[in-house]
Amino acid sequence: MISPMREAAIIGVGMAPVKSTSGKSLTELFMEAALEAINDAGVDRLDAVYVGNMMSGFLQHQEHLGPLMATALGQEGVPTYKVEGACASGGVAVNAGVKALLSGLDDIVLVGGVEKMSGFSTPEVTTGLMMAEDRLRVGATGITFVGLNAMIARAYMHKYKVPHEAIAQFPVLCHKNAMDNPKAAFHKLVSVDEVLKSPLVSDPLRLFDCSGIGDGSAALVLAPVEVAKKFTDTPVKIAASSVASDALSLYQRPDVTVFEGSRKASERAYALAHKKPEDVNLLDVHDAFSVLGVMALEDLGFARKGEGAKLLKEGQCERDGSLPTNTFGGLKARGHPVGTSGVYQIAELALQLTNRAGKCQVPHPSVGLSQSIGGIGGTVAVHIVERLD
Amino acid sequence: MISPMREAAIIGVGMAPVKSTSGKSLTELFMEAALEAINDAGVDRLDAVYVGNMMSGFLQHQEHLGPLMATALGQEGVPTYKVEGACASGGVAVNAGVKALLSGLDDIVLVGGVEKMSGFSTPEVTTGLMMAEDRLRVGATGITFVGLNAMIARAYMHKYKVPHEAIAQFPVLCHKNAMDNPKAAFHKLVSVDEVLKSPLVSDPLRLFDCSGIGDGSAALVLAPVEVAKKFTDTPVKIAASSVASDALSLYQRPDVTVFEGSRKASERAYALAHKKPEDVNLLDVHDAFSVLGVMALEDLGFARKGEGAKLLKEGQCERDGSLPTNTFGGLKARGHPVGTSGVYQIAELALQLTNRAGKCQVPHPSVGLSQSIGGIGGTVAVHIVERLD
Repeated sequence: MISPMREAAIIGVGMAPVKSTSGKSLTELFMEAALEAINDAGVDRLDAVYVGNMMSGFLQHQEHLGPLMATALGQEGVPTYKVEGACASGGVAVNAGVKALLSGLDDIVLVGGVEKMSGFSTPEVTTGLMMAEDRLRVGATGITFVGLNAMIARAYMHKYKVPHEAIAQFPVLCHKNAMDNPKAAFHKLVSVDEVLKSPLVSDPLRLFDCSGIGDGSAALVLAPVEVAKKFTDTPVKIAASSVASDALSLYQRPDVTVFEGSRKASERAYALAHKKPEDVNLLDVHDAFSVLGVMALEDLGFARKGEGAKLLKEGQCERDGSLPTNTFGGLKARGHPVGTSGVYQIAELALQLTNRAGKCQVPHPSVGLSQSIGGIGGTVAVHIVERLD
Repeated sequence: MISPMREAAIIGVGMAPVKSTSGKSLTELFMEAALEAINDAGVDRLDAVYVGNMMSGFLQHQEHLGPLMATALGQEGVPTYKVEGACASGGVAVNAGVKALLSGLDDIVLVGGVEKMSGFSTPEVTTGLMMAEDRLRVGATGITFVGLNAMIARAYMHKYKVPHEAIAQFPVLCHKNAMDNPKAAFHKLVSVDEVLKSPLVSDPLRLFDCSGIGDGSAALVLAPVEVAKKFTDTPVKIAASSVASDALSLYQRPDVTVFEGSRKASERAYALAHKKPEDVNLLDVHDAFSVLGVMALEDLGFARKGEGAKLLKEGQCERDGSLPTNTFGGLKARGHPVGTSGVYQIAELALQLTNRAGKCQVPHPSVGLSQSIGGIGGTVAVHIVERLD
């Protein structure tokens, strides 16, 4: 690689509220977030539209979301396509948008994630989620996506002798944070005890260990740093956009308690941004399941393996702690419309860094990091963002 | 936009034969093309893998093709994702790969298109193809994808007073060219008379007006121009990679006999490459239906509206003509595994430009142009390639 010749900034963000049932079409969902982002940026044109989505082909029998959305926005003509990386589809779509901008070919870029999961039966959605895994070798066994993550949780708890109580602090934190996020799907405090006593989904994972899927959309407007201040007084620089993969399936990995994709993507992101983990003071991680939130703290370099939950216990991940994490509620409580979460995360970091996070605001964030996971870690997108002053 | 700081070159190409039924999985198909391209390039590492595909979620219930394919290649770890733009998925995947390379972030990039359409009923595949259109507003009427193209053909023939006989020259040309392509799906000469007497599919389109779908995969290895000569004596420069969109649906367009996406994408490509249509002496266009091949000759700037078929009649599109077109058989006779065709086109242009096209070789090509269409022109990807001497 060589150093890109320019840098990308976020000049507008938009988010539709996450709902278990929105009553809206894919296009309506996308438009809600995209128009908010466009208005926030104050742009009167787009040079490109990139759409992150995982399940529209399977669930809605609708592909070609690029021109579908560009047309709805009145922007037919622009370069546009859909980008898919399972549950990290939003994260990798941002990566595609950033690369397009850094190439010099696109200047004002809209990146949006959209997913509509309501209106389908549990078997339908379960089959859809398993599209993230190798269908012929793993899906065909009948194991579910929660089941795969339960195997990770069991291995993690055993290897590092971490009790469920420790991991359960993650959803407790997220539910607390989501109370202040009007766009979150869930506004309900839960305790560690309630997590541990909630219905068993796939041993050892219980209901409150699992994020809630739903309908949602989030969008960013990107511009080159050098023009960003023309549009907003508070642009946010994307200091790094990094995607890494891992062997797709658990059986192909030497150690299922580490996501090598998280390590690789974050190591590259730190190098690109000239940052270290200790520079990060705002975090948004992919807590689709409680154990993934804890593992993220480790794999991204904030704690040693097996010690992620200590950060939670010490209060470091609270909004007034040293590493505020999932400050809008995370996948667990903001909600996880799968192909959108990677965009929600970055939109939330941008609001925090520009002091526009409302009741979710943390005191003085300067450097934020997001981690978006596809499948069981087969894809990981990491972004580092910082305020441009 | 600003000028990219470097240029992309093709250093390796690979193609699986197109078959109506391959008996291979998505992964096996992809590997066949990808390994051929990697061996052709002689690279021992990849920095990124981008996969073009339209229908795997709907047909195979398989998404997350990025790490699925990267893992199969032993390249787990690299940035990877799937790129989708309906039948132009291959073309837009190449665009994503080129932008990644031009950004400076990726150097050695594999771009592959893969599609497996065998093993499904006609209603299933028909529903799948209609994912390219707006399902709620157009798909719900029950019209098929062939039906939409038939409406275009009818409008075109009426507006420009072009008889079916003239349009039918396109499949005749493609079938003739495919006779020399061992990887083509069809090895059968057809005459204009046979096209006109073949079974009616959707009036006025008959069987031999329509390309054949199937299973296939094609791949390119890209590298920065400045290092390309380390790998091959015959690199091919990607002088332009351009994607444009149009209003997704026919009812949203003032004139269905023009693809504005083709015009916009090619105008930008000519500007990026500092070329004019008259500089192009090798062409590969998206002839999913005979009328689209004729329209492409016009919308890309080689003929006035209504006069595309004259080029065919004058023999300009023959291999020994001034504008050799679809020299390996095009979508019509090489075959059209939808998400792959945009990559096959560029691979074929690269073989021609490096004098490796075997019996399909044309005399002295120097500048090639490919046009890949998604849906009924909602997405168009245009690439201009030239030999690097």
